[in-house]
Amino acid sequence: MSNRECMTISPFMAFALEEARAAGARGEVPVGAVIVDAATGEVLARAGNEVEARRDPTAHAEMLVIRAAARARAEKRLPGCDLYVTLEPCPMCAQAIAFARISRLYFGAGDPKGGGVVHGPRIFSQPTCHHRPEIYDGIGEAEAAALLKEFFARRR
Amino acid sequence: MSNRECMTISPFMAFALEEARAAGARGEVPVGAVIVDAATGEVLARAGNEVEARRDPTAHAEMLVIRAAARARAEKRLPGCDLYVTLEPCPMCAQAIAFARISRLYFGAGDPKGGGVVHGPRIFSQPTCHHRPEIYDGIGEAEAAALLKEFFARRR
Repeated sequence: MSNRECMTISPFMAFALEEARAAGARGEVPVGAVIVDAATGEVLARAGNEVEARRDPTAHAEMLVIRAAARARAEKRLPGCDLYVTLEPCPMCAQAIAFARISRLYFGAGDPKGGGVVHGPRIFSQPTCHHRPEIYDGIGEAEAAALLKEFFARRR
Repeated sequence: MSNRECMTISPFMAFALEEARAAGARGEVPVGAVIVDAATGEVLARAGNEVEARRDPTAHAEMLVIRAAARARAEKRLPGCDLYVTLEPCPMCAQAIAFARISRLYFGAGDPKGGGVVHGPRIFSQPTCHHRPEIYDGIGEAEAAALLKEFFARRR
């Protein structure tokens, strides 16, 4: 692999961006997420936001992939799994990531207004938080942020 | 109604305690929740924890009743609804309560180790939190706490 190829975003974040675009096309806030078995590279679940379609305030992309991956594994925890999401998780999703024992969290754009990882309550830095994944941010940030900006510009 | 009767816990918290007991009997952490339409007194949803049964780290009682009530109303938000839960909600559930626009939150026992309302990240006090329900705590506290204490004593 050339250096140039090494610098492209991971294929898993590319899947998450695909899910975000598809969510936006359905009228959802364009956020997408993917869960991968880190040992095998197997994609266990991928989803975009479904808050509107399901009329479910908890149906964020991260919650959907955590629930689907846990179902796929028949385990309530997902150690050894990595979660890729196009936007900084909110406090609800961050806490669910901690409960699920996700190993690594990769996210695209930061979310100063609603994020719960590097903004707001910084869930993983709370003394009461029992699990902190490794965190890698800014992956695919430009595209994730552009999708959101365009979506909210259209809604105004 | 006599003063004595006024001092008994609300029937809705009694339902939540029933759900907590049933959850404990199934081997779940004994927490129960109920959502009520405050205008009519109609119970829209009631549930206990189902984390073990569903192998779903997000299947806390509060999440289940929020999702079920939203489904029942075909609305992603639940203004005018009250949520009764036997234990202080964790940060995940507190954020879901904010997203759902729950009007009033009644909870039993406080949870210094895992709570997210009056402990830990105090979700509703975060400047980034867009909705804060009215909060009433300590309702049915003794029974809720006793259930949890007994459950964890048995597991040791």
